[in-house]
Amino acid sequence: MSFSAETRADLSRFWSTIESSAQIGQGRPGGLSRLTLGDADREMRDLFAGWCRAAGLAVEIDDMGNIFGRRDGLDNSLPPILIGSHLDTQINGGRFDGIAGVLAGLEVVRSLNDAGHITRRPIVIVDWTNEEGARFSPPMVASGVFVGRYDVEWAHDLIADDGARFGNELDRIGYKGELPCKAGEIDAYFELHIEQGPILDAEKRQVGVVTGGYPSHGMRVMFRGETAHTGPTPMDLRQNALVAGARWLTAVDDIGWEFAVLDGKATGSRLAAWPNKPGILSESAQCVADVRHPDPITARVMAEKMRRAAHAAAAMAGCSVEVEDEWTWGGDIFDAELVGLIRNEAVSQGWNWRDIQSQAGHDAYHMAMHCPSAMIFTPCKGGITHNNAENCDPGDFVAGLNMLLHAVVKRADR
Amino acid sequence: MSFSAETRADLSRFWSTIESSAQIGQGRPGGLSRLTLGDADREMRDLFAGWCRAAGLAVEIDDMGNIFGRRDGLDNSLPPILIGSHLDTQINGGRFDGIAGVLAGLEVVRSLNDAGHITRRPIVIVDWTNEEGARFSPPMVASGVFVGRYDVEWAHDLIADDGARFGNELDRIGYKGELPCKAGEIDAYFELHIEQGPILDAEKRQVGVVTGGYPSHGMRVMFRGETAHTGPTPMDLRQNALVAGARWLTAVDDIGWEFAVLDGKATGSRLAAWPNKPGILSESAQCVADVRHPDPITARVMAEKMRRAAHAAAAMAGCSVEVEDEWTWGGDIFDAELVGLIRNEAVSQGWNWRDIQSQAGHDAYHMAMHCPSAMIFTPCKGGITHNNAENCDPGDFVAGLNMLLHAVVKRADR
Repeated sequence: MSFSAETRADLSRFWSTIESSAQIGQGRPGGLSRLTLGDADREMRDLFAGWCRAAGLAVEIDDMGNIFGRRDGLDNSLPPILIGSHLDTQINGGRFDGIAGVLAGLEVVRSLNDAGHITRRPIVIVDWTNEEGARFSPPMVASGVFVGRYDVEWAHDLIADDGARFGNELDRIGYKGELPCKAGEIDAYFELHIEQGPILDAEKRQVGVVTGGYPSHGMRVMFRGETAHTGPTPMDLRQNALVAGARWLTAVDDIGWEFAVLDGKATGSRLAAWPNKPGILSESAQCVADVRHPDPITARVMAEKMRRAAHAAAAMAGCSVEVEDEWTWGGDIFDAELVGLIRNEAVSQGWNWRDIQSQAGHDAYHMAMHCPSAMIFTPCKGGITHNNAENCDPGDFVAGLNMLLHAVVKRADR
Repeated sequence: MSFSAETRADLSRFWSTIESSAQIGQGRPGGLSRLTLGDADREMRDLFAGWCRAAGLAVEIDDMGNIFGRRDGLDNSLPPILIGSHLDTQINGGRFDGIAGVLAGLEVVRSLNDAGHITRRPIVIVDWTNEEGARFSPPMVASGVFVGRYDVEWAHDLIADDGARFGNELDRIGYKGELPCKAGEIDAYFELHIEQGPILDAEKRQVGVVTGGYPSHGMRVMFRGETAHTGPTPMDLRQNALVAGARWLTAVDDIGWEFAVLDGKATGSRLAAWPNKPGILSESAQCVADVRHPDPITARVMAEKMRRAAHAAAAMAGCSVEVEDEWTWGGDIFDAELVGLIRNEAVSQGWNWRDIQSQAGHDAYHMAMHCPSAMIFTPCKGGITHNNAENCDPGDFVAGLNMLLHAVVKRADR
């Protein structure tokens, strides 16, 4: 049975799921604070799993807490199509970041149910655990385990600033599943996400076809010094790790401005010093920073400047420096055929669209290491995100949702 | 009855009190972590108050938790002599900082008891609450209330990083006394303290006569920005308060190096950003910094550079800045007559001594706003302090202890 090109997703039904989600884990006015593996995350997971079952999906949980809702195809021996994103938020997060992508997947299967259309391949919708990394670092850790980048034991041992252990929190909220977190063969991965940048909104575009991601390099660094009195200790005898951290994040910000004219960005996002108190020099400072640039060679140069700046900052403060973790993502990682399929939907459905590069990290980056992957971006007001003022209208999703629906069906019926 | 110039304090009895104190609130090897108004602070207070009562002192507690142990004089209508310091420590503190001064006061009254000498004026030994400021900021807050610099209600409302309220913690440990924290007429204030710097140890001096303090200026500043995504947000739209804080503390450190050749110091001691997480720009950063210089005009210039650097850092990071608190201390604050009395004891007792300026803040600075005050410094190994490696021998106290004893008696018998 063919699927009518005229079929449209039910925008108001999709929007009602957004509104229900926005009741769970409310933060500042209009925003959410639904940190991964907290009680609100459990409540949201329960709601989502219930919606999946009501839509006839077979729900499975893996041992990283990823939730899979599977809709059988005509030939279940074929590798499935995955549609996914995340339901967790930043501590001062919005109602759409990640959430819109998971619920768009749900709307796709509901629309297929309405149409009575069984695709040739199975379709699986996914909620990835801890995309944000706002409680447990690194972000996107569960999709990383899924594709074999991280070990599951290592991920279970991650400790949050609140002292909680990832594996224990999974147990506590009842979402450590039986299924091993390990990707089988997958035909294609789709992810719809709000842009989290100002471009589509500024250009009044209805949708963006994501061609890849800004090449990005990040580091978590530990500076170590020695406690001493802030008063009598001479400047040349100091080993103030807080100063090492401050100098590094200042240097990183300078790198960002140096490359800003071609849209480079550099960010110091974390500085956790100890004891971090008046009267005493700090003995340790953990810092996180990253650089991003549309051009991969420039991004690499920025990363090397960031790395050398860490050593220079440590030297200037009389401290040692240890790189605890490094990561890189982005580039031309998305599948040309899949991107073309999405672009064709934009054209044939007549939306006002453009190609766009992602500047944020997404689980799709991990999935692209494993199978053909692609993303669709929808507009958000002023590009504001990771903030309770993040905002979208239902109409902001109409193009992306219907492009996702038809691209998925075409791929699944192939 | 005259007091024999040959009388010596009991060094081994003094040392035994140091050793008993070092059992309470143990931190890293050799050090203490006896934060103010915690359970270990209560235990130490109980021990100290017991020692006072056993020495025949009348113990009173005021509503800031300051402990006073009073030894009557021949004429109790005369203003008393106070001897004080503090029993709280930094989170990674030593066994002598503050503690030696309180226990030296105790040894003075015990030595007077042994000699059967009643001074003309009363003598009061004091443990000041929260000298360190390691849990509740600002430091020296209780001596500040005592001399009328701060309001007691304001101090009771101070909140620690652990969420505790100063007044509630006073109640909890049973040390919110009936006595209003308000200084009456006081004849003189003496404080013995370890130097917390390398000078006496490097010059093999037995004792330092403190003539004043390095003029010092400090600020607590709040930078405010806006949360946003670390990825897509362009450099010129960012308001990352963490970057404002890092830039300020970097500039403060630069000021320290600029003035280091004449022994200037500048310190960034605290940067507490929120949310301070990978993936999100921080909306707030509270920072503390100070500058110190032996010359008051230079210290003032350094302070102004520090203040302007805060505004420049905020501007560069697109943030606002608010000065939450400012303080200054030091200068030629100690009483010439009292300093001369102590110096005469150094000479007549034949110690290897020198005049010295304090570089740390002390309760004596507050007391000097109210009555003639002076300090005695004793050596500590390598000047190491606010660190568990802080170390002294009993012999390091022999000069200071006996100078204190005889200077106090001469003043009290005046």
